[in-house]
Amino acid sequence: MSEQLIAAEIVASENASREAVLKRDYEALGEQLSRRNISIDDIRKKVAEFGVAIPSWGVGTGGTRFARFPGGGEPRDIFDKIEDCAVIAQLTQATPTVSLHIPWDKADPKRLKQAASRFGLRFDAMNSNTFSDARDQKLSYKYGSLSHADAAVRKQAVEHNIECIEIGKTLGSKALTVWIGDGSNFPGQVNFATAFRRYLDAMQEIYAELPDDWRLFTEHKMYEPAFYSTVVQDWGTNYLIAQELGPKAFCLVDLGHHAPNVNIEMIVSRLIQFGKLGGFHFNDSKYGDDDLDAGSIDPYRLFLVFNELVDAELSGAKGFDPAHMLDQSHNVTDPIESLMLSAVEVQRAYAQALLVDRRALETYQGSNDALMATQTLKAAYRTDVEPILAMARFEKGGAIDPVSAYRAAGYRAKVSTERPAVASAGGGIV
Amino acid sequence: MSEQLIAAEIVASENASREAVLKRDYEALGEQLSRRNISIDDIRKKVAEFGVAIPSWGVGTGGTRFARFPGGGEPRDIFDKIEDCAVIAQLTQATPTVSLHIPWDKADPKRLKQAASRFGLRFDAMNSNTFSDARDQKLSYKYGSLSHADAAVRKQAVEHNIECIEIGKTLGSKALTVWIGDGSNFPGQVNFATAFRRYLDAMQEIYAELPDDWRLFTEHKMYEPAFYSTVVQDWGTNYLIAQELGPKAFCLVDLGHHAPNVNIEMIVSRLIQFGKLGGFHFNDSKYGDDDLDAGSIDPYRLFLVFNELVDAELSGAKGFDPAHMLDQSHNVTDPIESLMLSAVEVQRAYAQALLVDRRALETYQGSNDALMATQTLKAAYRTDVEPILAMARFEKGGAIDPVSAYRAAGYRAKVSTERPAVASAGGGIV
Amino acid sequence: MSEQLIAAEIVASENASREAVLKRDYEALGEQLSRRNISIDDIRKKVAEFGVAIPSWGVGTGGTRFARFPGGGEPRDIFDKIEDCAVIAQLTQATPTVSLHIPWDKADPKRLKQAASRFGLRFDAMNSNTFSDARDQKLSYKYGSLSHADAAVRKQAVEHNIECIEIGKTLGSKALTVWIGDGSNFPGQVNFATAFRRYLDAMQEIYAELPDDWRLFTEHKMYEPAFYSTVVQDWGTNYLIAQELGPKAFCLVDLGHHAPNVNIEMIVSRLIQFGKLGGFHFNDSKYGDDDLDAGSIDPYRLFLVFNELVDAELSGAKGFDPAHMLDQSHNVTDPIESLMLSAVEVQRAYAQALLVDRRALETYQGSNDALMATQTLKAAYRTDVEPILAMARFEKGGAIDPVSAYRAAGYRAKVSTERPAVASAGGGIV
Amino acid sequence: MSEQLIAAEIVASENASREAVLKRDYEALGEQLSRRNISIDDIRKKVAEFGVAIPSWGVGTGGTRFARFPGGGEPRDIFDKIEDCAVIAQLTQATPTVSLHIPWDKADPKRLKQAASRFGLRFDAMNSNTFSDARDQKLSYKYGSLSHADAAVRKQAVEHNIECIEIGKTLGSKALTVWIGDGSNFPGQVNFATAFRRYLDAMQEIYAELPDDWRLFTEHKMYEPAFYSTVVQDWGTNYLIAQELGPKAFCLVDLGHHAPNVNIEMIVSRLIQFGKLGGFHFNDSKYGDDDLDAGSIDPYRLFLVFNELVDAELSGAKGFDPAHMLDQSHNVTDPIESLMLSAVEVQRAYAQALLVDRRALETYQGSNDALMATQTLKAAYRTDVEPILAMARFEKGGAIDPVSAYRAAGYRAKVSTERPAVASAGGGIV
Repeated sequence: MSEQLIAAEIVASENASREAVLKRDYEALGEQLSRRNISIDDIRKKVAEFGVAIPSWGVGTGGTRFARFPGGGEPRDIFDKIEDCAVIAQLTQATPTVSLHIPWDKADPKRLKQAASRFGLRFDAMNSNTFSDARDQKLSYKYGSLSHADAAVRKQAVEHNIECIEIGKTLGSKALTVWIGDGSNFPGQVNFATAFRRYLDAMQEIYAELPDDWRLFTEHKMYEPAFYSTVVQDWGTNYLIAQELGPKAFCLVDLGHHAPNVNIEMIVSRLIQFGKLGGFHFNDSKYGDDDLDAGSIDPYRLFLVFNELVDAELSGAKGFDPAHMLDQSHNVTDPIESLMLSAVEVQRAYAQALLVDRRALETYQGSNDALMATQTLKAAYRTDVEPILAMARFEKGGAIDPVSAYRAAGYRAKVSTERPAVASAGGGIV
Repeated sequence: MSEQLIAAEIVASENASREAVLKRDYEALGEQLSRRNISIDDIRKKVAEFGVAIPSWGVGTGGTRFARFPGGGEPRDIFDKIEDCAVIAQLTQATPTVSLHIPWDKADPKRLKQAASRFGLRFDAMNSNTFSDARDQKLSYKYGSLSHADAAVRKQAVEHNIECIEIGKTLGSKALTVWIGDGSNFPGQVNFATAFRRYLDAMQEIYAELPDDWRLFTEHKMYEPAFYSTVVQDWGTNYLIAQELGPKAFCLVDLGHHAPNVNIEMIVSRLIQFGKLGGFHFNDSKYGDDDLDAGSIDPYRLFLVFNELVDAELSGAKGFDPAHMLDQSHNVTDPIESLMLSAVEVQRAYAQALLVDRRALETYQGSNDALMATQTLKAAYRTDVEPILAMARFEKGGAIDPVSAYRAAGYRAKVSTERPAVASAGGGIV
Repeated sequence: MSEQLIAAEIVASENASREAVLKRDYEALGEQLSRRNISIDDIRKKVAEFGVAIPSWGVGTGGTRFARFPGGGEPRDIFDKIEDCAVIAQLTQATPTVSLHIPWDKADPKRLKQAASRFGLRFDAMNSNTFSDARDQKLSYKYGSLSHADAAVRKQAVEHNIECIEIGKTLGSKALTVWIGDGSNFPGQVNFATAFRRYLDAMQEIYAELPDDWRLFTEHKMYEPAFYSTVVQDWGTNYLIAQELGPKAFCLVDLGHHAPNVNIEMIVSRLIQFGKLGGFHFNDSKYGDDDLDAGSIDPYRLFLVFNELVDAELSGAKGFDPAHMLDQSHNVTDPIESLMLSAVEVQRAYAQALLVDRRALETYQGSNDALMATQTLKAAYRTDVEPILAMARFEKGGAIDPVSAYRAAGYRAKVSTERPAVASAGGGIV
Repeated sequence: MSEQLIAAEIVASENASREAVLKRDYEALGEQLSRRNISIDDIRKKVAEFGVAIPSWGVGTGGTRFARFPGGGEPRDIFDKIEDCAVIAQLTQATPTVSLHIPWDKADPKRLKQAASRFGLRFDAMNSNTFSDARDQKLSYKYGSLSHADAAVRKQAVEHNIECIEIGKTLGSKALTVWIGDGSNFPGQVNFATAFRRYLDAMQEIYAELPDDWRLFTEHKMYEPAFYSTVVQDWGTNYLIAQELGPKAFCLVDLGHHAPNVNIEMIVSRLIQFGKLGGFHFNDSKYGDDDLDAGSIDPYRLFLVFNELVDAELSGAKGFDPAHMLDQSHNVTDPIESLMLSAVEVQRAYAQALLVDRRALETYQGSNDALMATQTLKAAYRTDVEPILAMARFEKGGAIDPVSAYRAAGYRAKVSTERPAVASAGGGIV
């Protein structure tokens, strides 16, 4: 059995005080759902099987170009990060995997594997980094990486990605995620077509090194860090890439990487329909790539994305097997708390989407009854599925109320004494 | 020789008062350009050969859902419209073709051809209309057309498009433009994948009827008239369509049909690079599909689009042959005046883009000299090419100052007496 | 007692089939809420007292500049509209008032009063219209109304608004809402400062005619029908207006009239804090002023607006007395159905906001516990308050399921035979 | 006479090779302008008198939360920064002042004054910093500063601002600019009204310490670093602040701090009309607060802003005296080069706006001739005023081509050897 960083007694005691109410609420909801011909236990089981990966970098406190305000007990290295991820997994029972970022998380692969398996964690997609310069890196990515004008820089970036694959093989990862910051800040700075050609050529070299049972995820983003043009700026370009590279290449959708007002769930549908949806970086946003907690700003949008995913799952869309990962920046909250509740929010959207009466929906769609069609979605979305999520956690040994249990355990205070504070930078980048 | 609706003496007299100054300015600019190793005459010749199509519906006064405020002397039918287009062509010498909209412009094809050839005009792409219900139409497009849930509606829409091709064949058109309003106003109203599948199937039927020397242009638009989802919502979907349909299918870019902040010139580059740029609907916008006069809001953006086009032209991009059309709504100006100046604006952007020192640009790009690269574009853009445009018009028999000549001729006053006012609607649609 | 257009037996029979389940759900929810120290009956009473006005123009089918697709049985005049409003009020018990639009709804005031009182309806704010030209209107509003360059046009617009006040006095209205389309489509078309000065002067003339117990609501909108600049473009300008005019002048907030990504609930808070919130035009939108059904796109945003309203209500914000009205355009649904469910959605957001544990919220805010603060809102929002809303309707004599009762009664079919179809326009405005 | 860091001979030699052509172009343009009844010398004189302040932080290389890629020879402290500013001022003759940021630029005020006067530079507005934590700062601004829930933090922030005033007094500054990052990342995290009340109270304390001949500039920004709400989020709130504080309080407009699509020139007009325009932070942007070089993305927008400023200047708007400052982040260019060209771009917009035929414009506006009104602006904008700008520089002792002279002088290479490289951070903040 896996080691647990939160004492079992604390979880037990926290749960004990909530168990009776949970059962009562679960029962009441179950009765309501049975009237809608839905088995609450079936939903609970599906939720229990649903997992989302934690990004290793998410457990540290985030920041902006203006400042980063460190929190207490921040992880000093990947091993501290894995411990924080273990806490999240223990209390939520929803996050069985960790996604690494190289070179930030570089360490002896064997030690990494041991550290993770100690807590029953596995490794999700590997993430390469060519959007910043690593210490002692030979050539700079200031003007790009995989699309750089200089072949030597592209080569370095290709080799770095191949190295990520190599590390991932040892760790049991089955995917490489490539997000680059390449682009331009001024009209004319780069030739769009030339840069994209170079990018595709470099990606082909990486793709060639991909093991047969791996997938390659490319991630689009409208802007930032580049502020005039970005090489992989939207799903259209992302689709072209996946198509050019081949059957192991897929598109990754980060919910915060689109233009204002864009209908993201429709992009998800298109990628599913054309067999190129690789997975998600979940988070929420109001303005740009705000990297806020999943579901914190527009929870209905998250539900609508899952409405597409469940529709694909139930209709047996060909090759449908999306990867789920959180990708957030926690500037003012305890990252562990935010990640726990974000994982729960993702499960919540999944559970709500499972409640949609799809036969009724199809009928309304067929008769152009827009009002009843949209009400069919709303009826599912409005259902308070918290008892299902809590019961799924509870039955798997997690906490009915993860934040309460986490706070009761005093984990943050404990690691704050063990992990020396990371010095605050004197000022931001501006 | 073509008939002229603006008396030759008026144009001559108007030009006479401006000729000396024009020649002086042309000479001064010529000297400046020769210092930059550019032959002003070469640029002038290219500009003179550059034409943009006038949409037949553009010569009527536009409006919004709140109201339409008619102008004087509005065209009553396609024959009036052709006359207005002839005036634009005569004075600007930049608009040799007219683009028809069926069923609005339906008439005896022989009469249409005669009406146009009388003024030396030809017909550009045919436009079908399934976003509104024609009088006496059997089935309504209220809930969609080519993607409608009901096969009978889709069939009607397909047949309408095939009819447009038939009419176009007689008129000498070589392209069909398909823009539809299909989409939804509510989450759940349509199943995205099902609707797109139906759309693709319907389009394949239309494509099958396309003559070998024709092209099919599909046009994407983010929203309006549908306000939650739109079947052909962006260039990503548009590209999928062109790819699914085949080698005669291309994507049409309307500058006002994108999400806020989107880098349109980059989309243009992608479509060129993958051989799927069909052409443009030129206009300008600040908020949504505002359909304002080309270059009136963000002239630098128009230049940046032409920078891509000229780059493709000079580098011999494979299959590069974009169609150019204005698509604007003139709510507060005389449509003829707006269309004349908009055609000139499009030529202006083309002329400026021709002035870019592409060898220097490439060098700066190669050495990551972002500042000098962008200044190379700016140097071309800043050049006041008005003398080139005016000289091109003048030498072809047009007006040095088209608006002044048009006003001097009193055309609007004349047609206002001939064409009875279209009654103003009592109120808008809201 | 008021006359009822939906037979009482139908409502009774519809309710009978739902009553037992409703009571059971109400009880279960009541128990849950009592655990949170909330009395479900208190919430139900507050909801029962909460009303939202129906705009007379909302019961007709809306459209876009591209087309309007009429529905069956559309109201031919204001008397038909009042009947449709009576149906909405009967079934939802949430819409006690109607808001008129002059000149669209112009009729003998006595007859209007009788028609409304027959169904127990009252009149909410009067709406003037200077964004379109009425038949036989002397001067056109093509280039503006209250800010027009010509004093005669401004005078005509002022007089129209004063006439609206006069009509409203007879009808028992207590407010005038002024929304104008004035603005420009081109840089330079108007001088911003001059136009705004003229607008303020004209509004002062209207304000001078306002009875002491009336309020004047001005409504801002970012764009449309003007596409470059709009005289009352945002809440900043709207606040200036209210401040310049005096204590009876207030700002009206239409949820769809803001720039992309704007935090609307914050604007609501600012207007409350500075004593200038007049009220709302509720609707929802994804792109621009889409005028979709309230809560259909982003229900959490609607909740966050009501979170501000309830906070102001409970904290006794000075002069806080906002007017609530729906303002939507129903292009693909039966307007009566959409308005019924939209009124319910507004009540839903109100009910959810009443559930917020404000003492806990304040404590979390005071200790910078962002996570628990936002979870406090989420806990309220997640609660499925449908039983409260249904019970409030039921106890007041409305329908537990308004759409089902409405459909069962066959009202639309009935009026479709009585009201001849409004001829579909041959095509849109474009 | 001031000391010069670029050898006079280099400037002279660079200018010598360009002087003849400049004179020729200046003459040709002068003749063109005289035809439009404009004296080129008058314009040149106005341009020569126009200055824009350089922000001290602008001469270092900027970055994003993902990475900062240092350039060579970056300034190590405020004294190096002043030298870089001196180079900009020498070559452009357009930037007579430097704007300091405290605590980043904290140093012995006497030394600061000497350092600046050595190069003939003066000090513009002082900028306080409460958006990041200074080393050894007692209380953190993680959860806000002037609006913080804790009175002690607010007091610390007030005192810091008062200290900035004190330093500024010694340096001869006459204004304090306050921009704060206060806001929230989650709905509910702060109470909007309470936080704003606290902000206003704190600002009143600062205002009370403002010398009589000083001005207080507050700067609004839609988002970043806060991603759900920002205390001073738009010009509406900014205006409320200036009004609440008193006659020495004004609004500062940063061109990149608005919602997508917002008409900024209209905001400028409103603030002028109500006597509250304090000044500008010039830059350009495509997506968010991109801080790109002024005029690099949308030069026509910059012109339209200056069109308002010149209109106010010529019409004698009461109390009109805006401060001009650049505020940019240079991530991929040499900051000195970007700042030189940006200062020139600001002058360019000013020069173009001076060319507008305002009498004609007013006439067209009065007769609703939208087309000719907008063409009147375009005619001015299209004029290539480069000879005027270059001549203004040349006559004041600057460089005809500042970038060329700067590169010829080898300044960057020289300081790169003198100033040790700032170590690149190992990775970004994410």
